Amino acid sequence: MTDTSREPLSPLRWENGVLMVLDQRALPGRTEWLVARSADDVVVAIRDMAVRGAPAIGIAAAWGVVLAACSGGREGVVAALPRLAAARPTAVNLHWALERMEGVLGRAPDAELATALEAEARLIQEEDLAQNRRMAELGAAFIAPGARVLTHCNTGALATAGIGTALGVIREAHRQGKLAAVYATETRPWMQGARLTIWELSQEGIPATLITEGAAGQLMQREGIDWLIVGADRITANGDTANKIGTYSLAVLAKAHGAKVMVVAPGSTIDLRLPDGGSIPIEQREAAEILRAAGLTEAPPGIAVSNPAFDVTPALMIDVIVTERGAVEQPGAGRMQALFSEQKQ
Amino acid sequence: MTDTSREPLSPLRWENGVLMVLDQRALPGRTEWLVARSADDVVVAIRDMAVRGAPAIGIAAAWGVVLAACSGGREGVVAALPRLAAARPTAVNLHWALERMEGVLGRAPDAELATALEAEARLIQEEDLAQNRRMAELGAAFIAPGARVLTHCNTGALATAGIGTALGVIREAHRQGKLAAVYATETRPWMQGARLTIWELSQEGIPATLITEGAAGQLMQREGIDWLIVGADRITANGDTANKIGTYSLAVLAKAHGAKVMVVAPGSTIDLRLPDGGSIPIEQREAAEILRAAGLTEAPPGIAVSNPAFDVTPALMIDVIVTERGAVEQPGAGRMQALFSEQKQ
Repeated sequence: MTDTSREPLSPLRWENGVLMVLDQRALPGRTEWLVARSADDVVVAIRDMAVRGAPAIGIAAAWGVVLAACSGGREGVVAALPRLAAARPTAVNLHWALERMEGVLGRAPDAELATALEAEARLIQEEDLAQNRRMAELGAAFIAPGARVLTHCNTGALATAGIGTALGVIREAHRQGKLAAVYATETRPWMQGARLTIWELSQEGIPATLITEGAAGQLMQREGIDWLIVGADRITANGDTANKIGTYSLAVLAKAHGAKVMVVAPGSTIDLRLPDGGSIPIEQREAAEILRAAGLTEAPPGIAVSNPAFDVTPALMIDVIVTERGAVEQPGAGRMQALFSEQKQ
Repeated sequence: MTDTSREPLSPLRWENGVLMVLDQRALPGRTEWLVARSADDVVVAIRDMAVRGAPAIGIAAAWGVVLAACSGGREGVVAALPRLAAARPTAVNLHWALERMEGVLGRAPDAELATALEAEARLIQEEDLAQNRRMAELGAAFIAPGARVLTHCNTGALATAGIGTALGVIREAHRQGKLAAVYATETRPWMQGARLTIWELSQEGIPATLITEGAAGQLMQREGIDWLIVGADRITANGDTANKIGTYSLAVLAKAHGAKVMVVAPGSTIDLRLPDGGSIPIEQREAAEILRAAGLTEAPPGIAVSNPAFDVTPALMIDVIVTERGAVEQPGAGRMQALFSEQKQ
């Protein structure tokens, strides 16, 4: 359904002036589409995680700007921009996409505003797809035949405009016949691995094994893996990478067991304004997301719940960052900066 | 409810010739007691995890032998022993308790068999409680004031005859005013941390914070911990320790962040017949335990689920093993053996 030869699945579709959003909270049990008719509908869809994955969030936000323009014109867009930007704090693609839309806002005359914004949103979405194809090829080139890989969270078609980032690399490496084993963590508390990644892999006919995060250490200890392959929500100027909570733990385990770590993310994920991971804001989500699985509606007296949505893996622990602009091995400030200079491919 | 000054909560009560089993699957929502009237009722309670925790499993099995004797005499016991032994494969306390009961079977005349077995089961339960008190004191002595500790799974009163092993140490260290922070992992897939440990800590008035396993790395990276304190299901002759899946991952993370690792378990957990952790059988449980949380009843086509219930932490990564016989720092074969020689306290 999502390989490079067929029309890729996309969680976001612009149809007849509304944004259709595949509600990822209902997967894999049900395939439900939400209809977003306003920027605020998009804010809710992002905040409540009907749409998730850093690139998909950016694309959704861009369409949110188009919806604001359709109903409220220039003023509507100006009012919607900060609300969309605040929907989730960690992923930088959201801000990157909104800045592109803001650029159009500055350039386009009133009469053409909605059309110009729609064209830009469509371009962002199409570029994401092309970038994913490029990253899949660049990343798969690092994978040796017979490789055993572990991935975390969902970084597939559902997290992007289609194809995926880390899961796109796994898909391409599988297509090239290189993979001996694919493991996916369930990814608490949202279960993106068990609900979404496993669903995508099954749809693609890629054999895989689901594990809990806790079992990752034993997997590496007893059976070994060659690569941990993950996406990113924000990469700072030195290569430090914010990604789904649990990524840092898996990276420490990978390095302790001689496995390599690959981060796959579009260039829009790189935030050169932040020097390092210490300055990335980490979203704390509500306790209920964790308590629910224990049959609790609230924490017992005296008990707190810490539910950070992301963690930061230092660049030193990352073997390669793959972007559509090229792959950066042993990432550091100089090499990350070079990605954005003209000399680089 | 379970501190050392009051009557400790026990998940197992022998009342009027039946074994009352606190059904831990219903906690923390409901306090339900199962009535086990036969050895097979006990087998089911152990296998289906109504009772869990290595020491509690051993005690329950001992009472199962008493039930077999009450209804089937000597022959009933002989028939029940292998069924009880096979209820769960990893915890060695189960076998240790059954061997004690088998010893009584060999010694006691028919007329006194049931009475003698009942006395032995009661003794096993009382000894466990006394051992837990001793371990709590010995373990707490290692904790410096202001310590930040992390625990995994449930090793409290519910996992034992009362007090607990690792959680007993935390309880005692709290009583001594030494703890600056207590963290508990939710412990997938059974959520023993979120359901049971958090419930016990709240009942005891010990402030604590619940996290997912995936968040443990970030906790250590950003806020730091001093000790990872866990129980054990089987400890081999060299100190390698099988415990709840996820323990090994947490131990690797702890060592990578300069935290110490304490294992707390009664001497009956130590299996001197096994030279090292490579020979410990690891129970694989059914896929449904993991899939359920993702809203799935079975794995999608092409997808496997690996659900090991335990992992093995090498002795080299353990700073101290605390038993009622004494504490073993930097455990290895010689020091573990010495625990069982007469010179040792």
